[in-house]
Order: sequence, then C-alpha cells, then structure tokens
Amino acid sequence: MVADPLVVFMPSGKRGHFPVGTPVLTAARRLGVDLDSVCGGRGICSKCQVSPGIGSFPKLGLTVTEDALSPWNAVEARYDEKRGLKPGRRLGCQATIQKDVVIDVPEGSQVHRQVVRKDATAREITLDAATRLMLVSVDEPDMHTPTGDLERLNRALKAQWNLDGVTAPLPVLAKLQGALRKGDWSVTVAIHHDHRDTPRLVDVWPGFYEGGIYGLAIDLGSTTIAAHLCNLQTGEVVLSSGIMNPQIRFGEDLMSRVSYAMMNPGGDVEMTRAVREALNVLIEELIADAKLEPRAVVEAVIVCNPVMHHLLLGIDPVELGQAPFALATSSALSLAMQELELTALNPAARAYLLPCIAGHVGADAAAVALSEAPGQQEALTLVVDVGTNAEILLGDRTKVLACSSPTGPAFEGAQISSGQRAAPGAIEAIRIDPDTKEPRFRVIGCDLWSDEDGFDAATKATGITGICGSGIIEAVAEMRMAGLVDASGLIGSAEQAGTPRLQPEGRTQVYVIYDDGDRRITVTQGDIRAIQLAKSALYAGARLLMDARGVDRVERIVLAGAFGAHISPLHAMVLGMIPDARLEDVSSAGNAAGTGARIALLNRAARAEIEETVTRIQKVETAIEPRFQDHFVAANALPHASDPFPELSKIVTLPDVSFNQAGQEGGRQRRRKRS
Amino acid sequence: MVADPLVVFMPSGKRGHFPVGTPVLTAARRLGVDLDSVCGGRGICSKCQVSPGIGSFPKLGLTVTEDALSPWNAVEARYDEKRGLKPGRRLGCQATIQKDVVIDVPEGSQVHRQVVRKDATAREITLDAATRLMLVSVDEPDMHTPTGDLERLNRALKAQWNLDGVTAPLPVLAKLQGALRKGDWSVTVAIHHDHRDTPRLVDVWPGFYEGGIYGLAIDLGSTTIAAHLCNLQTGEVVLSSGIMNPQIRFGEDLMSRVSYAMMNPGGDVEMTRAVREALNVLIEELIADAKLEPRAVVEAVIVCNPVMHHLLLGIDPVELGQAPFALATSSALSLAMQELELTALNPAARAYLLPCIAGHVGADAAAVALSEAPGQQEALTLVVDVGTNAEILLGDRTKVLACSSPTGPAFEGAQISSGQRAAPGAIEAIRIDPDTKEPRFRVIGCDLWSDEDGFDAATKATGITGICGSGIIEAVAEMRMAGLVDASGLIGSAEQAGTPRLQPEGRTQVYVIYDDGDRRITVTQGDIRAIQLAKSALYAGARLLMDARGVDRVERIVLAGAFGAHISPLHAMVLGMIPDARLEDVSSAGNAAGTGARIALLNRAARAEIEETVTRIQKVETAIEPRFQDHFVAANALPHASDPFPELSKIVTLPDVSFNQAGQEGGRQRRRKRS
Repeated sequence: MVADPLVVFMPSGKRGHFPVGTPVLTAARRLGVDLDSVCGGRGICSKCQVSPGIGSFPKLGLTVTEDALSPWNAVEARYDEKRGLKPGRRLGCQATIQKDVVIDVPEGSQVHRQVVRKDATAREITLDAATRLMLVSVDEPDMHTPTGDLERLNRALKAQWNLDGVTAPLPVLAKLQGALRKGDWSVTVAIHHDHRDTPRLVDVWPGFYEGGIYGLAIDLGSTTIAAHLCNLQTGEVVLSSGIMNPQIRFGEDLMSRVSYAMMNPGGDVEMTRAVREALNVLIEELIADAKLEPRAVVEAVIVCNPVMHHLLLGIDPVELGQAPFALATSSALSLAMQELELTALNPAARAYLLPCIAGHVGADAAAVALSEAPGQQEALTLVVDVGTNAEILLGDRTKVLACSSPTGPAFEGAQISSGQRAAPGAIEAIRIDPDTKEPRFRVIGCDLWSDEDGFDAATKATGITGICGSGIIEAVAEMRMAGLVDASGLIGSAEQAGTPRLQPEGRTQVYVIYDDGDRRITVTQGDIRAIQLAKSALYAGARLLMDARGVDRVERIVLAGAFGAHISPLHAMVLGMIPDARLEDVSSAGNAAGTGARIALLNRAARAEIEETVTRIQKVETAIEPRFQDHFVAANALPHASDPFPELSKIVTLPDVSFNQAGQEGGRQRRRKRS
Repeated sequence: MVADPLVVFMPSGKRGHFPVGTPVLTAARRLGVDLDSVCGGRGICSKCQVSPGIGSFPKLGLTVTEDALSPWNAVEARYDEKRGLKPGRRLGCQATIQKDVVIDVPEGSQVHRQVVRKDATAREITLDAATRLMLVSVDEPDMHTPTGDLERLNRALKAQWNLDGVTAPLPVLAKLQGALRKGDWSVTVAIHHDHRDTPRLVDVWPGFYEGGIYGLAIDLGSTTIAAHLCNLQTGEVVLSSGIMNPQIRFGEDLMSRVSYAMMNPGGDVEMTRAVREALNVLIEELIADAKLEPRAVVEAVIVCNPVMHHLLLGIDPVELGQAPFALATSSALSLAMQELELTALNPAARAYLLPCIAGHVGADAAAVALSEAPGQQEALTLVVDVGTNAEILLGDRTKVLACSSPTGPAFEGAQISSGQRAAPGAIEAIRIDPDTKEPRFRVIGCDLWSDEDGFDAATKATGITGICGSGIIEAVAEMRMAGLVDASGLIGSAEQAGTPRLQPEGRTQVYVIYDDGDRRITVTQGDIRAIQLAKSALYAGARLLMDARGVDRVERIVLAGAFGAHISPLHAMVLGMIPDARLEDVSSAGNAAGTGARIALLNRAARAEIEETVTRIQKVETAIEPRFQDHFVAANALPHASDPFPELSKIVTLPDVSFNQAGQEGGRQRRRKRS
C-alpha cells in the first residue's frame, strides 16, 4: 500500500498526509494552516490562492513534480480569464493533492497576515478583525418542517463556518429574506464576533459580495477628532482625516467643558449632540472621499479621554470635575453605533470603546498603552501623548504608571496669536540663526526651506498662513537658543537682543517671523506664556510619575500625539516639555492613541489584552497631588528652574540672558554651559 | 454544650440549627426558604414579614415559647408606627433566633408565591418575573483605586445579591451617578434577567424605591389588541384594556394585509408604523388609567400571529403570503421595547416575544399552548382560540398538533351589519322563543334580560347599540333552533317561518331583534353567510387536526379567544363551530393567548418551557392541504352537511326546515331528531 501524499505548507511548516484528490484548502483547514477564504471553498472569492513549489526541497527531503497538484480546472480557468491569476498561483479550493507537494501560502492569502505600521516600531498588528465576511449556502424552507430563515442561516453557519448562535438586529433581520431569495439561497454575511459578545449579523448581501468591509479607528480628542478608515480584510488604512471638535465653543479644555455642564442645565446634552454631529460629518466625508457605500463600513473603535468618553456616551461629566473624579463606568464598552446616534455608516455597525484607566486617565491613555506597550519594555520608558489633555505613561516590564495632565490647547496651535491647525501653509518647522537672529522656516505642503530657491513659487498656492503646533514648539525653543527669550520666558527688546525683528506690542515684545505687508506672523509674549503653561503641565505630570517610580531620569522617551511625529525631540527638550535624556533615546510615535484604536480595530485579541493590561496600570491623580503644583511652578522656566538637563547641555549651549528690566540685566548676553 | 436552636420554616418544612442571634432572614436564605426581600435585610422594605408560631408543635416535637425570637427592636417599632404590622408579624431581617422556633412564611412574603388565575383552571402561575427590584449599597469611589460607579455597583450586586456581570444601556448608565449620590450610595435597581440574556440594568432610583414595577402582557390580534398591566411583585393584574388594531384599514384579515404589502411598495412600513402607534396609545392609556409613572412599567411580553409578528418587528410579511410560508425568524426574541419604537413606558423596558410555531401558527398559538397545556392532558383536548385568525391545537400527553385557520373578523362583530365591539350597550346574549319567535336579550353593562322589569331603565345610559361577537353567535344559533334559518343558512320569510320579525330586505330576509324607531338591530342574510364562512374555517381546521391524529371525535374542547369566555358552548355547537362533544366537556378559557403572555411575563421558567414545547408541536399547514377545502365546504351547513352531531342531538332538536324556494319546501316546518 502506498502512503497518502505528504503536503507541507510554508511558511508555517505544518505538514500532513492526505488522500489523493483532497483540495489544498481542505488540507490547510485540517492542519490549522492560516489560509483565507470568504466563499468557503466555492471558487468565487479567490482569497485562498496558493503557490505550489516545484523542484527539490532537500531540507524537507521532498521532490515536487509538476503534476503534484491536479491540472487547472474550469473554475480556475474562468477566474484567470476574468480577473487574472498571478503566474504560479492556484486556487486552494480547486487544486487537489495528487503527489507530495510543498505549498506556499502568500501573505495576501493569510487571514491573520501582519499589518505593517508605517509610523512606528513598537509592534506589528496581526489582522484578526472582529467583523468578517462569510459566504454561506442556506437550506430552502420546507413547509413540512417549518423553521425561520434566520434559524436555517444559523444552521448553515454552524455547518460551514463552525459559528454558533448568531443573532440579528431587527433591521438586518428585515433584509434577510430578500437577500436569501435574490441570492438563490446563497448570501454573504458580515458577522461581528469580538472577544466579549456573542456573534451578531451586521449585514447580508445576496450571493457573493465583493465590496469589502471597512472599519474606523477614531481618536476623539478635546481639540481635534482624527479617524482612520481601514479595510478590515487587508488591514490597510484607506484614508485618514480629521475635524475640529466643535465642543471647543463650550470650552477649550476639558475642565471648562465640565464647568459648562455644571453651570448650564442641559449643557451636557448640547455637548453630546455637538460631538455626535461632528463625528457623523467626519464619517460621512471619509466614506464619500473613499467612494464607499456607507453600509460597507461596519465597525468602529473609539478612544478618548474620560470627559469626551462621557460626553460621547451621553453621560453628564460633572463627576469628573471634582474629587474623587468618579467615572460612570470604566470598563470597555461594546455598543451599537446607533446607540451613539452615529448613523453615517452601516446602521448595524458596532462600536468598541477601550476601557478608561481612571477619572482623568481615559481610553486614549489605554490606547497609547496598547500601541506603545510600555509594560513590555526593558528600558524605563516615558510615553507622552501630547494634546489638549496629555496622557503620560511611565513604565517597563515590572510596572506601569499613568496620569493625565491638562496642558491646554496651545500645543495644537490654539490660544496662539498666529496659531492654526496643521494644514498646508502652516509653518511647521523653524530655525533662527543665533548670530543674525534671522528665521528660516518650512510650511506644510512644501519641502523647501524659506531661504531656498523656489520656495516662494512653491508656496504661492497655499501662502504662508500661520504656525501649527510643532511650529510653535520649534519657534519658542529656537528663540530661547538664539537668545531672544530668557530662561523665565521673557522676550527681549530689539535693543536687548539686537534684532529689529523684535518689535514692541503694547508693553511686551513680539518676534516677527514673517511679514509680507499683508500677513504678519509673530510670536508674542502671550504665545510664550501659553507654551510655558502647557509644557509645565506636561513636565509636571511626567515628573510626578518619576517620583512615584522613585527615579530622576528615564531611559527612553516616546513623544506621541496627533502631531507627535512632527515634534522635534531637541526642541521639546530645550523647552523642557520632557525630562532630560539622550537625544537618540527620544523617539516619535505619531498618533499613538489613534494607532492603539487601529490595533484594537484590526485585532480582537488586542481588546482582551488592553482590558487586562489596564487593571495592572497604577494611576496617579495629578489634580489633587500637592507636588504637582510644585513641579508645575518649577517647570515654568525654559527648560527648568531647578532640574538639571545634563544630556541637553552636552549638545546645546543656551544663552544665559535675562530681559527682566527690574533686574537691570537686560541686554547683556552671556554664553555659558548650563550646569 | 447546648445545641444551637432549631428553626423550622412553614409551609416548606425546611429546618436547621442556627446560633442564637441569627436573623430569621439569614436563616431562611441559608436553608433556601422562599422569603422575599427587596432591601436585602435593612429593615426598609418589609417584604420579609414572618409569623412565629407560639405553643406546642407535637408533630415537630417542639414547644415554642414567647421569647423564641428577640424582642421587637426599634426598626420594627418604627415600621409598625409608620405602616402598621399585622398582629403576630415580625420583620424577618430584624427578629433574631433565641430559642427553638417555628416560623410561618405568609404567602405575601414568598418571592415565588402562586398567582391565582381568575379565569381558568389549567395552571397556576408561580411568580418569578424576569425583572426584579433590589436595594443595594454601593462603595463610594476611591480616587486612589479608581473604578467606575457601574463597576462598583456590580461588585455590590455580586456581594449582596449574588448577581454577576450586570450591563447597563446608555440612558440608564447616564442616570446612575446622580441616583447613587442622591441616595447616599444606596440605590434600588430594577434588573432584568431572563432565561437567555445576561442581567441588565433597567432602571435605578436613589435609596429605597417604593413605587413597584409593572409589566405588560400584550395579545396583538389581527382585529383587537388586548393588554394586561401586571404588578411584577405580586402578579396581580392591575388593569386590562383593549384597542382596535388600526391595520384593519389595510385589510380585515391577515392575507389581505399581506396582499396590501405586496401591492403597495412601502405598505409593510405603513402597517408597522400603524401597529406600533396603536400599541403606544394603548400602553400610554393603561399607564395613565393606572396612575403609574411610565418608568414603573419595565417589561412586556407580546404574543401575536406570524403576520402581526413580522409587521410589529418591521419585517415585510410577503413570504407569509405564499408557500412555503417561511418566517424570517421562528425563535423567541428578547428585545428592547425601543427597538420596536414602543416608547410609552420605561425607555429601557425589555420585550419578550414568544416563539412562532410555523408560518401560519404563531406566537399566539404558542401562548395558548403555554396557557392550556394540551400536551399535559390525559384527555384528547381540542383548544380553539377564536379570533380573526384562529389558532387550533389538538393533543394530549403523547402528541400535540397545531394549525391556524383564517376565520375572518365576523366572530369579533366585524363584517356584521349590526356588529360592534364588546362594549356597554352591545347585545352579548340572546334567546329566541321557538314558539313565538320573539327575542329577548342581554346587553353588556346590565345583568337583566330585555324582558325583565327595569331593563329599560338600566340600559338607558348606554342604549342598545349593536351586537358583539358572542351575541351574533347566539343570535344565529337561536335563529337556527327557532326555525328561522334552515340548515343551509337561508333565512325564511315572515310567511315561511311565521313571524313578522322576519322582514324582506332586497331579495333576502332579515330578522329584527330590536327596533325603537331610531335604531334597528337586525340579523341579515349577509350576517349569516359571514358567520357560516367563519365557522366553516374553524371547523375545517379542527377536523384537519383530527384527521392527522386519526380520530373522529375529541374528549375535551376548550374555547378560547379574546371573547372566548363569553361564547356559549351550546350555541357554538349548534352553529357547528366546534366538533360534536358532550356539553360538559366544553369549557371556556377566556383569552388563552393573553393568559399565556401573562404566564411568560410573570414566570421566566415558562419562557424556557414554551421554547422547548414548540419544538415538539407538529404543525399542519391548512393553506395547502386539499382536504381543508373539502372540510370547509362540508362545514358550511348548520351545524354540518355530513358529520353527525350525536351529543348535540341528545339535548337539542333542530327544526328540519328548508326555505329554498326552488325546492318548494318553503314554509313547511318539520321537527325531527337529527340522525
């Protein structure tokens, strides 16, 4: 008796003997090989493409001949004619095993393929979305053994996809009968099945649905709302977009919004309505721009701070404005998007909200913890998520601490005289010559510096319109390095600092970055004060965590935030936004909260992981910690009144100027190394 | 060492030894004695009242002394002063065990007390509602170990009520923080926890809520919608009410409504809106009449036929209009009332829909099966639920068969010339003297017959306004018995039948029951034909089940339906609505579907029971069974063209008249016993 042929799947190396004639997909499923299929092996979806390896495989002790798989059949020929199969590819559900064979499963055919993150190194995402498409053949009804169409669909899902007890919301149930009959008893269903809920029917299409399904990763910030539209079958980000949080009109920072709710009966309801409307607008635009049908967008993951969390859910945030800062609920939530009145997408779409860590440390901090995984680091890592409300995490394998700090919206360009959001025309980088005190800058939408040839032509369309968050950070830091601003944050006069770009405005000075007669872009004393307040809050929060951990310095710093990727580590350290560190130990993680949302959207196991992780994070409440005030006051200076910055001083020498008229030190400019 | 005192609870007989000082409630809980408590033993709710038995209990070998329980304490004294305790009663949570004692748990203190049904004998209901009230003390938030209020409520529910994983819909969650603080960290929660869902918070009140919670048992019929408002803590029916189903304007019977949906795009949506609006009106009126707050009504059970089921759910019923009559779903459903747009009650109220048995045999038939339990009977029992669509069940312990039959609305007084719904002024009973052919009758709202003294005065307020369902059944049967109508259903002329109350109207005759010059109430030939069609459909359905069972007669008949209790068994049999049987074997069960809904509302185990029962009921599809037509035609005669009615003929001799002019038999009136 001849043994059944041996099949070896690569790259997993899983192997087994199967009778001649076994389809490759069947063999893969028996062995638990990760080979995708939406149509369940009907030769329709082409997700199960494989590449047989022909030739000699000495390590496996195998020689594979050309006839190891069955010849092309009609289904493959038709598919190739209509869509084109790459050379060497076969459909795993059609090709059957004839002889010993090595089968390569290309990455695109793996269900749980790796999604490569463009913007960070912390972790890859294994695609395993909570919502999946499945083609299923349903028995026709039989009058003599009557059962409902949903019950027969469930029987088919159990038999064909090993899925039990799928329920259907009424609007989806209302579509089921029509779809089954139109599809001649074959339908594609979108099933949501995350780590905590029972499986749920989200949508149904007659026959084989080729349109794909999508999800949204939403970072709902105090000032800006950012969303990534992701393909749930490939993990790819199709489109990203942002919108201002319209709640700004009720208060720029969180506490002023809480106050608004306290002072104005029904104010919380107004703010809930505003944020839900903005989300609907953002979602609608994203879907329209991506040229998708709204029903193709079937899921969303939302991360936000506790106040936004409560306002989104329709819960009065008043308790978050006073000790003990009790959340209404801290657990992760799985909801229908319709419960949030988010209706611009599939009406049965689900929403997942990450857990909150504490009254001031929200689901956005949890998302940062998921994305940056400080608890998995060997080096003691400080993660600073810069925003109107900053999330700060400090930890390593042994322990993770977290707090939030109310930095205000200055870092996002708000409360800044020439501030604007990051958009074409905004100054995002700036350098000031320490000798001439002349600035050069770059604007969003153009790679040239303003002193390079062609800059004027290249920026003609957008103009030069203002300064965005990363621009203002660099501007203030550069002013400090060029001796235009002293350690206390005071701007010198033209005489004191020796440049006509310093001009009086009322009783203070401004630094003119740009002036074309029409538009004048300056950094004012008020701008410096706003940045000082913001950076002091950030630093004080980080310092509080370091106190709790009992350390004076950290080994690694990750700058995150909606514009985190654009912050220059050097300038952040000159400002004293972050503690002193070696520059090579400071990295940017981009929008870590948004990335955390995307991870939770694309991988349901990550949801269980972060729900468990947050229970082990130790919370530090900045709002009632007396040392926070002390740290805050000390952090007002640029970079700091008392903390030494030895690593910074190795690479930058800050001019030792003082423009305080009372102290009679104005105008003198001494260079010395900071001790 | 002296043994701990012995405590014996009556009527359960459960016993155990407990240390001196153990509260009676604690002892009851340890022994699993059914002793109610909403406040969890805080001396607030008074639900745990017990009566200690003093004296000698020879069968138990016990003598109980006056000091067997602790003396009255301050809590009991205060409660007695404020509310009054019945003599001999103690609060089980306050009185502690001192010596051997016998404790009687009065019925009112049992959670699972029996609810006595007024209208039927089939079964008692054990109170065990899915929604319960619980008083719970919640830990205050602690800033240093932050958790959400919901999470702390859950911890308290686990500790104090052994309830795990309670979830909260957003609107309830939004109320939680305020209630906890207003109630000083003590709240009463209404928790829904049926046999299939995880527990869910339905409402929350600060402190101890004394208002009670209520549920609705709704029988959604094709013609009328009936609802019982029940107290979920006592099982008592507080109020019942009914309303016409406004879908009548789209078609009087189910198939004409299905046709309406088929012929008019969006017609199903119109009908869904109509029935939901009517339900909201009915619920709103019931709650207002009972002087309750809408939020006190926290649950509903709904039973209906498959077409109403789909229209209520918002599903196009078109598939129910054609073979194979596939339901969109046949399983029982647990929903939020808001998903059905039923908003006149608590916004988080839950709805439970009983399962459907088949495309033509709905949740109403399941409710009848639950209420009348044919599958638990020794005698072969026929249950006929009379309505516009009749549900018919035949069975005994060995097997149950079910079908439905489209009787049309004639039995509910619709399509009858003088017909009206059962309301004061409607003729509900009628007798016709076989010699004088003169009628006498009774109207709803008055116990006197029309030939009794004082009838005119007693009915002056309501007037005599028409004939309701039971009235028309009696009228036609009496006309047959008095020789005014022949076996074919033809009304004789004044000359033929010998009474001036028969008067020509066009080419046919009418019988004048009442004429005061103003209002004239008659039975027309058209009325007789409508009743004949209706009763033939009913009889044919029953006969089809008897064929399937292989029997010619049944041992017991139960007449059910919204007005089932009012149908005279004798008259029903004279008409041939039901098969021949001994009169004493025919009983009325009232609105069995409504009772089934009430059982499912008050006892969650009954939900699991009926879900299991329906899987074992054998369905017979009348719509495609050729014999149904034969049975229907043969059943047109009064009582029947061919089936013998031996039991009926023992007690009634039907005049052998024929008014067919062509047959030249008119006017001759022969009395003979039917063979």
